[in-house]
Amino acid sequence: MSNPQPAVTFEEIRALVRNLPGPDMDAGTAALQRERQLTKPAGSLGRLEEIAQWVSTWQGQHPPDVRRPRVAVFAGNHGIAAHGVSAFPASVTVQMVANFQNGGAAVNQLCEVADADLRVYELDLDNPTADFTQGPAMGEEECCRAMAYGMMAVEMGVQLLALGEMGIGNSTAGAAICAALYGGDARDWVGRGTGIDDAGLARKVAVVEAGLKANPQAKDDPFEALRCFGGYELAAIAGAVLAARMARVPVLLDGYACTAAAAVLHKADRRALDHCMVSHRSVEPGHTRLMAEIGKEPLLDLGLRLGEGSGATLAINIVKSAVACHAGMATFAQAGVSDREG
Amino acid sequence: MSNPQPAVTFEEIRALVRNLPGPDMDAGTAALQRERQLTKPAGSLGRLEEIAQWVSTWQGQHPPDVRRPRVAVFAGNHGIAAHGVSAFPASVTVQMVANFQNGGAAVNQLCEVADADLRVYELDLDNPTADFTQGPAMGEEECCRAMAYGMMAVEMGVQLLALGEMGIGNSTAGAAICAALYGGDARDWVGRGTGIDDAGLARKVAVVEAGLKANPQAKDDPFEALRCFGGYELAAIAGAVLAARMARVPVLLDGYACTAAAAVLHKADRRALDHCMVSHRSVEPGHTRLMAEIGKEPLLDLGLRLGEGSGATLAINIVKSAVACHAGMATFAQAGVSDREG
Repeated sequence: MSNPQPAVTFEEIRALVRNLPGPDMDAGTAALQRERQLTKPAGSLGRLEEIAQWVSTWQGQHPPDVRRPRVAVFAGNHGIAAHGVSAFPASVTVQMVANFQNGGAAVNQLCEVADADLRVYELDLDNPTADFTQGPAMGEEECCRAMAYGMMAVEMGVQLLALGEMGIGNSTAGAAICAALYGGDARDWVGRGTGIDDAGLARKVAVVEAGLKANPQAKDDPFEALRCFGGYELAAIAGAVLAARMARVPVLLDGYACTAAAAVLHKADRRALDHCMVSHRSVEPGHTRLMAEIGKEPLLDLGLRLGEGSGATLAINIVKSAVACHAGMATFAQAGVSDREG
Repeated sequence: MSNPQPAVTFEEIRALVRNLPGPDMDAGTAALQRERQLTKPAGSLGRLEEIAQWVSTWQGQHPPDVRRPRVAVFAGNHGIAAHGVSAFPASVTVQMVANFQNGGAAVNQLCEVADADLRVYELDLDNPTADFTQGPAMGEEECCRAMAYGMMAVEMGVQLLALGEMGIGNSTAGAAICAALYGGDARDWVGRGTGIDDAGLARKVAVVEAGLKANPQAKDDPFEALRCFGGYELAAIAGAVLAARMARVPVLLDGYACTAAAAVLHKADRRALDHCMVSHRSVEPGHTRLMAEIGKEPLLDLGLRLGEGSGATLAINIVKSAVACHAGMATFAQAGVSDREG
């Protein structure tokens, strides 16, 4: 974050979004054809079949392969945390990053069960974004640099990318982004986050309302929405989603703040999240509303509201299971099992 | 199945059900207390927290431990298969058992991802149960012997038991059991199973209606419902659920037929399935109705309708994840993370 030159500009990002690689229909069709021959009634593995075809289509290969998943958790701090919009103090962001590094957080245990590679990316934790009730959280250069930083998570060899965030105050930032992208009242998009009380919830609503008022341009352009409301970690997630698309890596999005960051790209181009699945439905009510806007059904619905990539990591084994069935099952012919024709 | 003496009688089974071990509240309380100290907002892991406490409570130990899960799939054949109630011929039951043994089925791949021990139990596949449209599918002795056989799946060292079934025709048997236990029209409980067409669905409804008429005693006693409609594999599942309770092994139930078998015990005693979770919501509409009757919310909802323990096996990693978070996460004090008091 110390490079004086922005790695990219919004114009460059817009050009990337206009030229995203599309689905590999050959790989998708190969998956569909194999699926029909496997020893099970057609369609009986439900979304596992859909997942196997989706991975093939967006990896651009058949059979699909997800033996090397990565979990990327981005951490940033928010100027609006000073308004008391979270049940926890802003100091918890850096404390939790240390917890990730020491192996003590939920996502560490979940990565172990999923046999996934965890990377934690800190984005200038000592320097929160500006308070968006007073104007934009970031300048264009800062926002683009955070997006470029996020792109680095997509290194060679990664076959599936699960994204997550840590940042005290970022469910408020996510709510403001959603309100800018999709309209509606602030209270439609604000929830209790880590577990704030009624007074805190009212403060969150007021902060989002003040933010929308202070940043009228955020409604006109999705990248302005991202820049105005932040934070760095959400911009990094948007960057990682773009880089994954270009590198043919399917993506698992986590909960509300993470999905809000990705929705910026969907608003810019409706096809931009076709290589992403939403891993789980967050308790945060805005998440369900947001998924309807981007046309996604979550894989899991387990009442999570932790963030830090926990739901996305939990979904890795669902994707692994889908791919394992697709790649490893016998065909009717191989197994000598009668098809429905009997 | 060749032993001339029944291993148990319905009277013995009823006595077992009357004397089932209850929850270990000390272990459950220890789990609850630890959960509150872990580095996350209280309740933010949703059902993962519930699962960790449930495993502790029913294993009777804290911390919980699910490193050695077993998947037990029971296979049996049904006299009513001759009525054309399935999209597949009855010969598929034995063919699929061979597929399990050769590692080619979905459940084999899912066990690999879950690192679970798969055991397949054949119940006299050459001798289907009697056609229940003409009278009981089994005698009491046969039913009890199948239950006793199912109990054998709970061997020393198993820490979590995922149950599944294979048996062409058994979604019809499951529907008949449910109609006997809970009333309602046959068509409330009958679905398309492996994917039968409209004419086949009408045949399923007619077979269940004829079965209810030919076996009026099935409505009066849950074990009579199990005996009258079978099959052997469903009786074995009921036996395995009972044995798991006695051995303090938590159970993951699979889809419709499996849950119907377990529901026999719930009808006999409302506490009998407290050590069980339903792993997933089957596409079969009767499953949702049945879960409402037994008061269970499924862990997954992925549009599965395969059986063979596929959903229960898929849920093993959810349970492992829950236990890993519970056992492995740092406390606020250990990690130096500020709690909400700041």
